[in-house]
Amino acid sequence: MAARPVNVLITGANRGLGLEMVKQILEAQRPVKNLFACCRDPDGPRAEALRTLAKKHPNISINRLDATDLCSIKECSQKVGTLVGAEGLNLLINNAGFMSKSTLQETTPEDMKNSFDTNVLGPMNVIKEFLPHLRVGAKASEMPGMSSRKAAVVNISSVLGSMQVVKETYSYFPAISYRISKAALNMLALCGAEELKKDEILFALLHPGWVRTDMGGEEGEIDPPESVQGMLHVMASLTEKQNGAFLDYKGQPVPW
Amino acid sequence: MAARPVNVLITGANRGLGLEMVKQILEAQRPVKNLFACCRDPDGPRAEALRTLAKKHPNISINRLDATDLCSIKECSQKVGTLVGAEGLNLLINNAGFMSKSTLQETTPEDMKNSFDTNVLGPMNVIKEFLPHLRVGAKASEMPGMSSRKAAVVNISSVLGSMQVVKETYSYFPAISYRISKAALNMLALCGAEELKKDEILFALLHPGWVRTDMGGEEGEIDPPESVQGMLHVMASLTEKQNGAFLDYKGQPVPW
Ligand SMILES: NC(=O)c1ccc[n+]([C@@H]2O[C@H](COP(=O)([O-])OP(=O)(O)OC[C@H]3O[C@@H](n4cnc5c(N)ncnc54)[C@H](OP(=O)(O)O)[C@@H]3O)[C@@H](O)[C@H]2O)c1
Ligand SMILES: NC(=O)c1ccc[n+]([C@@H]2O[C@H](COP(=O)([O-])OP(=O)(O)OC[C@H]3O[C@@H](n4cnc5c(N)ncnc54)[C@H](OP(=O)(O)O)[C@@H]3O)[C@@H](O)[C@H]2O)c1
Repeated sequence: MAARPVNVLITGANRGLGLEMVKQILEAQRPVKNLFACCRDPDGPRAEALRTLAKKHPNISINRLDATDLCSIKECSQKVGTLVGAEGLNLLINNAGFMSKSTLQETTPEDMKNSFDTNVLGPMNVIKEFLPHLRVGAKASEMPGMSSRKAAVVNISSVLGSMQVVKETYSYFPAISYRISKAALNMLALCGAEELKKDEILFALLHPGWVRTDMGGEEGEIDPPESVQGMLHVMASLTEKQNGAFLDYKGQPVPW
Repeated sequence: MAARPVNVLITGANRGLGLEMVKQILEAQRPVKNLFACCRDPDGPRAEALRTLAKKHPNISINRLDATDLCSIKECSQKVGTLVGAEGLNLLINNAGFMSKSTLQETTPEDMKNSFDTNVLGPMNVIKEFLPHLRVGAKASEMPGMSSRKAAVVNISSVLGSMQVVKETYSYFPAISYRISKAALNMLALCGAEELKKDEILFALLHPGWVRTDMGGEEGEIDPPESVQGMLHVMASLTEKQNGAFLDYKGQPVPW
C-alpha cells in the first residue's frame, strides 16, 4: 500500500532548523500534500529563502504565525482548516524558539517572559488551536495505532531542558530562562500525550543536537542537514510506544 | 556550642502551609531572631490569624509581598535588609503558590500566566531581590559547608512537577498549568543550586505531601501540622550533599 500524502505544519520555518526541515520534507520520498511553513513575517527579508523555495514547490504554503500572538495562531488555524478540510492535519512541529544565555543573576523578567511566551505558551496555544485539525487527521487516517503520518505533535525541545544535565553543563552554559522554558515544554508535551492518547494523537519531544544555526552558534557540533535528517527519521519511526518520549536526533532517549 | 539565632523569611505566610510553618518555627527549640512572615494583604481579613499570632510573638514581622508584584518584592527586601543588617538572611522559603486544575483543553492563557507568574517568576524575583541578604547571611555564619541555618533557599514545589508521575496521575488530576509551573520551578532551583554554590547558598525543593489546605482540599492525605513538621525536619537536616535536591516531607527523594 502506497503511503497516502500527509499535511504537515512547521513553526519558525523561515530559517535555522525549521527551514532545513521544510527543504528535507520536500525532498523526501514519502509524499506531502500541504506543507504549511509558518513564520512571523512571511513578506520580510528573513523569509526570503523560504519564499524562493515556495516558488519551486507548489505544495508549500507560507503562513503568518507568531508564537507570541494568539490572534495570528487562530487566523493561521482557520486558513489551514479550509485548506486541509476533511483530511485534517497529520503532523504539527512546534519548532519556533527563543534563547537567552543569561544566568539567574543576569536574567530579567523580560527574558523570562520572552522564553515562556515563545517556548511554552506559544506551543500550548498552537496545540490548542490546531487540535481540531489533528483530530480530523487522526479520524481520516485508516492506520491503526499512532504515527506522525496519522496525527502527531512534535515539539523541538533541548537537552538543556533536562534536569539531569544541569550539574555538568550549567557553569559553562547557564541560559536559565531557556532551560526553565524547555523543562516546562517537556511537561506540557507529556501532559498532552496523556490527555490526547484517546484521540490517537501522538506527542513527542526532540532534542536536535547542538546545531550550527543562529541559535546554536558556530561552535555547534553538527550542521542543520545532519540534525534534521536524524529528526525526520525519528519522527517517521514514532509509534504509540514513543508517546510522550523525549528523544535526541539519533533516536536516543534524553533523561528528564 | 549553642545554635545562633537565625533570620527566616516565608512567602504566602497567612494561611495553609505557610501559616503552619510560622507557628511551628516559633515553637521550635532552635531560636529564630526575625521571622519575616510575608503575605499579599497584611491588613486584610485573610491575614487575621497571622496578625493574632504576631501579637503574641514579637519576633514575627509581617510584611507585604505579592509574588506577582516586583515592586512589593523590592520594597520588602529593603525593609528586611534594614532589619537584619550585618547578620543577613539565613533561610528564604518560597511557599506562596497558585493552582488551577484545568486540562490542556480547558486551560487558558490567563491560567498559564497566573501559574507562571506566581510559581516561577515570583520565586525567581524573590530569590534575586533577597540574594544580597542571603550572601550576607552566608558570610556572617561561622559554620562550614551549607545549611538552612547559614544560607538557604527552600522552594515548595510539588510531586505534580515531576515528569515521572504524569502517566499515572494525569487522568484523575490534570492541573496542566500547575504541573508546568512546578517543573519550571524545579529547573529554576536546580540552576540556582549550581550558580550559587560558590557563595555557599543552598537550594532545595520540597514536596509537602498531599495536604488538607484550601489548595489540597478535604480529600488530602495529611493535615498541615504533619506536613510542616516533616518539612522543617528535612530543612534542618540539609547539607551541601542535598544542594539541588527534590525531597518530600519525609526526606525521600522525588524523581524529576
Ligand atoms: N541550534 C541548536 O543547537 C538547538 C539545540 C537545541 C534545541 N534547539 C531548538 O530548535 C528549535 C529551532 O532552533 P534553531 O537553532 O533553528 O534557532 P534559530 O536559528 O534561532 O531560529 C529560530 C526560529 O524560531 C523563529 N521564532 C522565534 N520566535 C518566534 C515567534 N515568536 N514566533 C514565530 N517564530 C519565532 C525564528 O523566526 P524569526 O526569523 O522571525 O526570528 C526562527 O525561524 C528551537 O526550538 C530551539 O530551541 C536548537
Ligand atoms: N496542599 C497541598 O496538598 C500541596 C501539595 C503540593 C504542593 N503544595 C504547595 O505548597 C505551597 C503552599 O500551598 P498551600 O496548600 O498552603 O496552599 P493555600 O492553602 O492555597 O495557600 C496558598 C498561599 O499562597 C499565597 N499566595 C497565592 N498567590 C500569591 C501571591 N501572588 N503572592 C503572595 N502570596 C500568594 C496565598 O495568599 P492569599 O491568602 O493572599 O491568597 C496563601 O497564603 C504552594 O506552593 C503549593 O503549590 C501544596
